[in-house]
Amino acid sequence: MYESISILKGNIVYSKSLNELEICEHGYLVCEAGKVKGVYRTLPFEYGGLPIEDYENRLIIPGLVDLHVHAPQYSYRGLGMDMELLEWLETNTFPEEAKFKDLEYAKRAHEIFVENLRKGATTRACIFATVHRKSTLLLMDMLEKAGLETMVGKVNMDRNCPDYIREASAEESASETIEWVKDVLYKKYRHTRPILTPRFIPSCTDELMEKLKMIQMRYELPLQSHLSENPGEIAWVKDLCPWSEFYGDAYDKFGLFGVDTSSIMAHCVYSGEEEIARMKENGVFIAHCPESNMNISSGVAPVRTFLDEGLHVGIGSDVAGGSTENIFTAMAHAIQASKLRWRLQDNSLKPLTVEEVFYMATKGGGAFFGKAGSFQPGYEVDAVILDDSRLRHPQSLGVKERLERMIYLSDDREIFAKYVSGNRLF
Amino acid sequence: MYESISILKGNIVYSKSLNELEICEHGYLVCEAGKVKGVYRTLPFEYGGLPIEDYENRLIIPGLVDLHVHAPQYSYRGLGMDMELLEWLETNTFPEEAKFKDLEYAKRAHEIFVENLRKGATTRACIFATVHRKSTLLLMDMLEKAGLETMVGKVNMDRNCPDYIREASAEESASETIEWVKDVLYKKYRHTRPILTPRFIPSCTDELMEKLKMIQMRYELPLQSHLSENPGEIAWVKDLCPWSEFYGDAYDKFGLFGVDTSSIMAHCVYSGEEEIARMKENGVFIAHCPESNMNISSGVAPVRTFLDEGLHVGIGSDVAGGSTENIFTAMAHAIQASKLRWRLQDNSLKPLTVEEVFYMATKGGGAFFGKAGSFQPGYEVDAVILDDSRLRHPQSLGVKERLERMIYLSDDREIFAKYVSGNRLF
Repeated sequence: MYESISILKGNIVYSKSLNELEICEHGYLVCEAGKVKGVYRTLPFEYGGLPIEDYENRLIIPGLVDLHVHAPQYSYRGLGMDMELLEWLETNTFPEEAKFKDLEYAKRAHEIFVENLRKGATTRACIFATVHRKSTLLLMDMLEKAGLETMVGKVNMDRNCPDYIREASAEESASETIEWVKDVLYKKYRHTRPILTPRFIPSCTDELMEKLKMIQMRYELPLQSHLSENPGEIAWVKDLCPWSEFYGDAYDKFGLFGVDTSSIMAHCVYSGEEEIARMKENGVFIAHCPESNMNISSGVAPVRTFLDEGLHVGIGSDVAGGSTENIFTAMAHAIQASKLRWRLQDNSLKPLTVEEVFYMATKGGGAFFGKAGSFQPGYEVDAVILDDSRLRHPQSLGVKERLERMIYLSDDREIFAKYVSGNRLF
Repeated sequence: MYESISILKGNIVYSKSLNELEICEHGYLVCEAGKVKGVYRTLPFEYGGLPIEDYENRLIIPGLVDLHVHAPQYSYRGLGMDMELLEWLETNTFPEEAKFKDLEYAKRAHEIFVENLRKGATTRACIFATVHRKSTLLLMDMLEKAGLETMVGKVNMDRNCPDYIREASAEESASETIEWVKDVLYKKYRHTRPILTPRFIPSCTDELMEKLKMIQMRYELPLQSHLSENPGEIAWVKDLCPWSEFYGDAYDKFGLFGVDTSSIMAHCVYSGEEEIARMKENGVFIAHCPESNMNISSGVAPVRTFLDEGLHVGIGSDVAGGSTENIFTAMAHAIQASKLRWRLQDNSLKPLTVEEVFYMATKGGGAFFGKAGSFQPGYEVDAVILDDSRLRHPQSLGVKERLERMIYLSDDREIFAKYVSGNRLF
């Protein structure tokens, strides 16, 4: 009966809730069949004699969750940042994404993205691919092989983008999506799921959105998209959908905004009271992408308000609006952006804390996948072992301090071992 | 006659002015006696036959200049960021800095700082030590040995800080400073210079400032301090120095604000028109420290205004207000902070560009050291060779694009070789 049990030992840190960081120094994380049984300061008698993976003085944290990232944009991370969203899409994004029609190029590019995601602290991610069905499937094959838990979307866009990347009609976009979903089902992936991915309202006709709702219902798919990122974008949506009460309402009118469609909306920098209320009512997840919102001059989302309202909030790297897939760095950016928002925009909203960004990057975003992102009983065993010995210091540090340093200072060199859904990747 | 000539080959990038980035692909950097002779696309005939250090397709850039960093704070980089300046000083800074009275601790701590500075892209830095004369000297010994070009200051503070770190009187602070300067002169360092370092107005009595002016004149020392970082600090200075017209004027009244005292003022987040005009008139250097200004919620300095006015501006890591000594990262933060300032505070001030932050981090800050931070003829040969092959990409990239990626993505793994004042460090 103990065959499927594994035990990890080390300094265990995880979030129970937004403000409750649990720390168990030199503790035991007991796992059974890929799920957490419990975290113990002293190993319970019943597990005596079982082998223990002893990570000594290292940190053991839940795997990080990237709730919003564009795989094809990884090739131009850290490039071409001197513009705002709509110009940036035309200049950087569309020309690069168009290259992914070529499967050889897609393979070469996605291999880099997948390898770097695998090496880092991220165990789960919600990923935009491109409009191309075959290269989206190729990306999914690669992610499956890497052992990461992901949801991946073939992008839909049938308007307001250059011919070379636009799908010819709503009909074509929908039928390609169905073909892609069928291909995915045929593959019987264990770790990789399809997610509907209309790029955003400006690039999808009403007809396409209606068809996507049909596909969503038929295949019971979750959904990811963008919302209220930039003032110019929001004004454009108002023009395109004069019948909508606000940007999020445009998705909601199509039945693609939470409720029976588990949904992630990236950014929400300019979500007003009504939009926030609707997201709360519909159970929409927000992917907060602080670095992207800085890099393409979008602004800073009112995350404090989202948290006070009890909305679901996770963190997204949003590569290549963000320059890095490192979610620790995204946590630092989330704190930093919230401080500038407090100072420059609204000092009634207190800056985010270490506990809060760690929660969002683990349990907050993890909830989109079910029980993921914590070490409470029943959670999936996504665990990352951090070795911080490279980052030397002259004084002694407590476990929480060491975690805070990881947020500001760590990179892939600190990732010592990694488990996803109970499987050890390295 | 050619004995002292060395030639580096690679993709050479440097700033001629704020908006002129010079790129010489597969070019030759010819150096004589530690100074730049010229950058050439084709090697001039007269240098034919001399040995060439061929760095192939790598980038060759001027060494980066860190115009403001606190060596003793390196031990708590990335820690305790949830507070503003004055509370942060009391809680984090003073207790840690007090430990540097113990030379054993100072040695252990400074060794980490110096080694990491040596490994990175920084070739020159202006550094705060602590109030302790002997551990300041120890730090200078270590920096000299590392081969970096630095100015280092024993900190002065005789008021408004805990007893355990406060110097007993203006008299004691001044006499310790003189002893320290004498020790430094006796050492005959080649790369390490003393710089007067009153912490900031709140921690120095008028009497001490007057004495420091005498010391400054007697030994012809440059000066570094802090200015207009935080609203609470500025209000305090107004209380402490009711006779001053504005914060910077308090320094100026003591003769410690540019003119015949080459001076760096860190931060200048809230410098108004009068202060900016005075800095311009007096030739004061500004150390812009964007990450620190985010982390301790100070705000964002109006760097665009400084540049438009033609002020001297360099970049500072301000560890441990900033979490990292990596000046590439500081450049990214400078761009990001300027974008949020544009969006949230004042859209008349355009965000900073790649060219501008690169200029500030090289030639802009380098000017404090004389002819440093560029590859124009006569400049000191501070050169950093960057190998960006770890940061894979599927498409071909130009040299300027590769430089932009270094700003967002590089760490010490990209530093392939380094020269300071013509000497190769590694």
